[in-house]
Amino acid sequence: MFIDKLIESIKEKNNPTVVGLDPKIEYVPSFIKEKAFKEFGVTLKGAAQAIIQFNKQLVDAVYDQVPAVKPQLAYYEMYGIEGMIAFDETCRYARGKGLLVIADGKRNDIGTTAEAYSRAFLGETVLADGIKQKAFDADALTVSPYLGIDGIKPFIDDCDKHEKGIFVLVKTSNKSSGQLQDLVTQDCRSIYEIMASYVNEWGKNVRGQYGYSSVGAVVGATYPNQAKLLRSIMKHAYILVPGYGAQGGTARDCVNNFNSDGLGAIVNASRSIMCAYMSDNWKNLYSEDKFAEAARAEVIRMKEDLNSALAGYR
Amino acid sequence: MFIDKLIESIKEKNNPTVVGLDPKIEYVPSFIKEKAFKEFGVTLKGAAQAIIQFNKQLVDAVYDQVPAVKPQLAYYEMYGIEGMIAFDETCRYARGKGLLVIADGKRNDIGTTAEAYSRAFLGETVLADGIKQKAFDADALTVSPYLGIDGIKPFIDDCDKHEKGIFVLVKTSNKSSGQLQDLVTQDCRSIYEIMASYVNEWGKNVRGQYGYSSVGAVVGATYPNQAKLLRSIMKHAYILVPGYGAQGGTARDCVNNFNSDGLGAIVNASRSIMCAYMSDNWKNLYSEDKFAEAARAEVIRMKEDLNSALAGYR
Repeated sequence: MFIDKLIESIKEKNNPTVVGLDPKIEYVPSFIKEKAFKEFGVTLKGAAQAIIQFNKQLVDAVYDQVPAVKPQLAYYEMYGIEGMIAFDETCRYARGKGLLVIADGKRNDIGTTAEAYSRAFLGETVLADGIKQKAFDADALTVSPYLGIDGIKPFIDDCDKHEKGIFVLVKTSNKSSGQLQDLVTQDCRSIYEIMASYVNEWGKNVRGQYGYSSVGAVVGATYPNQAKLLRSIMKHAYILVPGYGAQGGTARDCVNNFNSDGLGAIVNASRSIMCAYMSDNWKNLYSEDKFAEAARAEVIRMKEDLNSALAGYR
Repeated sequence: MFIDKLIESIKEKNNPTVVGLDPKIEYVPSFIKEKAFKEFGVTLKGAAQAIIQFNKQLVDAVYDQVPAVKPQLAYYEMYGIEGMIAFDETCRYARGKGLLVIADGKRNDIGTTAEAYSRAFLGETVLADGIKQKAFDADALTVSPYLGIDGIKPFIDDCDKHEKGIFVLVKTSNKSSGQLQDLVTQDCRSIYEIMASYVNEWGKNVRGQYGYSSVGAVVGATYPNQAKLLRSIMKHAYILVPGYGAQGGTARDCVNNFNSDGLGAIVNASRSIMCAYMSDNWKNLYSEDKFAEAARAEVIRMKEDLNSALAGYR
């Protein structure tokens, strides 16, 4: 089961962190960009090739410290076909290093279309009678719940069949998330609470040996009070927590997403790790060509930050 | 402006129809599949190449009859990188024939990530100082509103800058759409009504000469009563209506999405057109090798069906 693999890796590495791989070309160190642009031109291909180099070196620097990476599909689609090649190669490389890959695509559609998305990222594509092939190969995918269970069930079926996972948006980290998610219905529950109940229910058939389900949820680090309530509603959901670091969420803000056993959540950081070499914390210690070492240092700092906040909480 | 181009093309062709290009490999006639599989193997590439041939012949058969096509991204991602190449080639080919392309991706994310999606499909990707390139090139994109305006604004900015459009999910055609969308808030409005108000408001700066906005909405043909209300709330939104044909929506069900001038909505059909050659209506008249003619016949039948329902309504 995906969720058991995730938990075992979190325990082994003593680190509930996922590294977001959101490679805007601006984040890539100049020496990598210049080499790729020289070889492939200042083109989508040049950018995508630079991103592949950047991602591989980041993965090399952190794979023994973190259980998972989370490539954000938008930052690969932005570079067209070449970007999707970079996405594919990043997934393969990370999985080859023993990392779980959470594709952040927030996919959503209905019936056979949701099934197609699920096959694209989690399952297998049928080409002809008895002939199947994997399109992309992630371990988990983020999905958006606006369409209800019709848009979620095909993914859950593949979670069951192929040991994969999903994380359903519940309460997102952005400022305007309340425009829809905080609306209060006539039974006095907010939309995010109702979505949380659905998520807990939807995941009941794919629970693993630790009591958690391969159907997880997304709850932003920027809403710690809501996290407390959501943690209690979604007893069996693992929570993916974006918003730590660059978006303003602190380790203390994240702890409400965890249970008292230190499990139940995994915290994402993207920019603060990828761009550690540019940050006030690390730029004096690591020059641009040492960007991967800076990323590793930030991963270790974040692990300690989270673990000490969790220790204080228990 | 995207919306003016759409309306002018609808008027010119006297047809408020969009042809969905959702090319599951099962839909592709055997003679096309066999040729492609022979050349490229029974592989993702073979499937994707078959899909390109299928789509191009469909486009050739209908481009003078319809204003737009709507490739559904899930059915391209399902074939991996090769599928994305098929998506890209389909978009280019259709635009070359004067069709507007609505990429159905239901994309959604926050801030700079929504910006990345927008650049991927509607805008341009910055590669270096002053050097930009288009990643994919659609005229419009469907988007999902779970994250609020933070997830929508970057797309609207590109609508304004690049003459593009978006269609925001409001009330989707599937059975379980009510799980979230029909919830009623404490001010006695349903979520889909509230979303509709947002959509009307969000689109106010990109209205064209006919009074409609390049920020449109998605309202399923399967909910005609809700459509009547939504039409009145979203005075300036063009409505993309899925669910006609294979999903059970009739022309009469669609008319509530239109205004009395015959404008205000565009109705999608995918399977009933792509697979017309297999349908009870057409299979006795058109053999498999005449699939494109069957699609054209169904497009013309649908146009007449919609126009006569609209005439009865006015």
